[in-house]
Amino acid sequence: MSTTTKRAYNFNAGPSALPLEVLQKAQAELVDFQGTGMSVMELSHRSATFEAVHNEAIANLRKLFAVPDNYEIVFLQGGASLQFSMIPMNFLTEGKRANYVLTGSWSEKALKEAKFSGEAVASVSTKENKYKNIPTEVEVGENDAYVHITSNNTIYGTQWKTFPETGNVPLIADMSSDIMSKPVDISKFGMIYAGAQKNLGPSGVTVAIIRKDLLESANTNLPTMLKYDTFVANNSLYNTPPTFGIYMLGEVLKWIEAQGGLEQVAKNNEAKAALIYDAIDNSNGFYYGHAEEGSRSLMNITFRVADEELEKQFLKEAEEAGFVGLSGHRSVGGCRASTYNAVPTEACQALADFMKAFQAKHQ
Amino acid sequence: MSTTTKRAYNFNAGPSALPLEVLQKAQAELVDFQGTGMSVMELSHRSATFEAVHNEAIANLRKLFAVPDNYEIVFLQGGASLQFSMIPMNFLTEGKRANYVLTGSWSEKALKEAKFSGEAVASVSTKENKYKNIPTEVEVGENDAYVHITSNNTIYGTQWKTFPETGNVPLIADMSSDIMSKPVDISKFGMIYAGAQKNLGPSGVTVAIIRKDLLESANTNLPTMLKYDTFVANNSLYNTPPTFGIYMLGEVLKWIEAQGGLEQVAKNNEAKAALIYDAIDNSNGFYYGHAEEGSRSLMNITFRVADEELEKQFLKEAEEAGFVGLSGHRSVGGCRASTYNAVPTEACQALADFMKAFQAKHQ
Repeated sequence: MSTTTKRAYNFNAGPSALPLEVLQKAQAELVDFQGTGMSVMELSHRSATFEAVHNEAIANLRKLFAVPDNYEIVFLQGGASLQFSMIPMNFLTEGKRANYVLTGSWSEKALKEAKFSGEAVASVSTKENKYKNIPTEVEVGENDAYVHITSNNTIYGTQWKTFPETGNVPLIADMSSDIMSKPVDISKFGMIYAGAQKNLGPSGVTVAIIRKDLLESANTNLPTMLKYDTFVANNSLYNTPPTFGIYMLGEVLKWIEAQGGLEQVAKNNEAKAALIYDAIDNSNGFYYGHAEEGSRSLMNITFRVADEELEKQFLKEAEEAGFVGLSGHRSVGGCRASTYNAVPTEACQALADFMKAFQAKHQ
Repeated sequence: MSTTTKRAYNFNAGPSALPLEVLQKAQAELVDFQGTGMSVMELSHRSATFEAVHNEAIANLRKLFAVPDNYEIVFLQGGASLQFSMIPMNFLTEGKRANYVLTGSWSEKALKEAKFSGEAVASVSTKENKYKNIPTEVEVGENDAYVHITSNNTIYGTQWKTFPETGNVPLIADMSSDIMSKPVDISKFGMIYAGAQKNLGPSGVTVAIIRKDLLESANTNLPTMLKYDTFVANNSLYNTPPTFGIYMLGEVLKWIEAQGGLEQVAKNNEAKAALIYDAIDNSNGFYYGHAEEGSRSLMNITFRVADEELEKQFLKEAEEAGFVGLSGHRSVGGCRASTYNAVPTEACQALADFMKAFQAKHQ
């Protein structure tokens, strides 16, 4: 393996950058894992070698994210999109209402799927404000089975800064795009779930953290693979899990630990995002952000170049300069820099510098 | 990378052996894919680079498995186990009956899940014969939505040699453990599906090949991620797919092509299985097979050592000699050698030699 590795400035929204050290370790042991004469992909999921990988990943996730003992951690497949269905199937019990807070496209999709299982409403929505902000409070009904939020909105670039109080009603959060980007008080949640492909590893693994009492009162008459209890009761090994993805997730967790854990990762993420937000805010309107300032995401920085023609030019020149993934989501356009955990500070500095130089050249 | 790679004799039932050449190529390009400065895992699933990988995998699957134009090919998640639910959800239409042929544990599981969606029966079962055989014919009802079979039974080591005639009723086959181990006349099937982790790649990707007319008459009022049409209409890119698994599957397909395609792969598999079956058949009863001779699988060779104490000794000594995965499934015990496409002839020869030597020593 070469010592000088060419690396793109990868700002993809997901799948996205992985830590170089993790990729290099995976590369080194890809053909022969721990002297077994097999790739980690060739191990039986019932083997002691793989089970150690699997259990270590779960244990490290619990430790680093400070997941209390009264929560189960499971690995699923199908991305957050399948969770949009599984959550109401399991937790929207008879006679109850599911309460969705809409802060973007992913919340809308989650609500749409819930309607297959029963009564589901959007109690609060910031759609009329083009999803530029996070609501300051939520409305909780006595009869709510749960309140569902999207903690970070990849497409619009907004993020919950403080999580809403929902009293006795379980709060469920899709944290696909900011899980483990900072410490979170897990005890405020009934359930947290996330596709791994932004902050935790490659695509194909979904993490769910579920409070035990929710499982105890969940619907039971469900297809085996759509029932959380199947995964809980079998330590996520009821059927063959995505073994390589779980291995990679475990390696990313070790890398998080080596960074100094979530406190340090959060500081890094704040500093990284500040570099780019500063380039926007100090541009005298040459660039402007989509999200309102108090709702800005530290994971997905959405912005526009005020001049539409220059915006095209910006994206073109950025691509030529080695920046990847800066086009906004196809549903909204514009620009977006995703600065997940594994995006290095240098890449963010390089983008900020590029933005300033582009402005100086074209203003 | 070292030129002498230690390789285990990997007879795992799945996840299982992958071609060494594929692992070495994946290793070489793991950190920098095609000069992008990114791992294939770091590519956006919407990028041209990944879409080329994705579409090439689908095209090669169509070519090598000779999938006619009136069939769609999709990549799913959740393994065959989730398909056990999706198939009846989509295809067990109102007033119809689902017809399951039971040849082992996986068929039983498939039937169990179908019962959540409507009327589902076991029309034929070989359970009373301890699943030692494949039935010679099936019973098809006029009102059947489909007939479901498991083409190869991993646990019991049986395999359909000729597929049943089901007339106008679509035949659906779980081919998880023998897909692309030999040429198959796809036109006999309404749908074929398979978890990738035996013959096609790592775990975490499921392949489905679905005749278009089945899709046209399928149930529509289903959750988005449980509806085949979602995957068909979006070229399996509705949400983030398991990108690394699809890449690996594509590389395995190229390897199959390099072997000479399925005709040659089938010949290799026959020769490989014959080495081990001969060791059983020529042992004068020291070893005996579980499956009846006419139903023997070329993928999973299930056998016992007649003396139970010696069987324990056999598994112990085999493990010490570098053979991996020879214990039978935990539900049935005994011994099992899984000889999927990527298991080399040398490994099968080594096992046959070991079996003969063990017999000579202990008889």
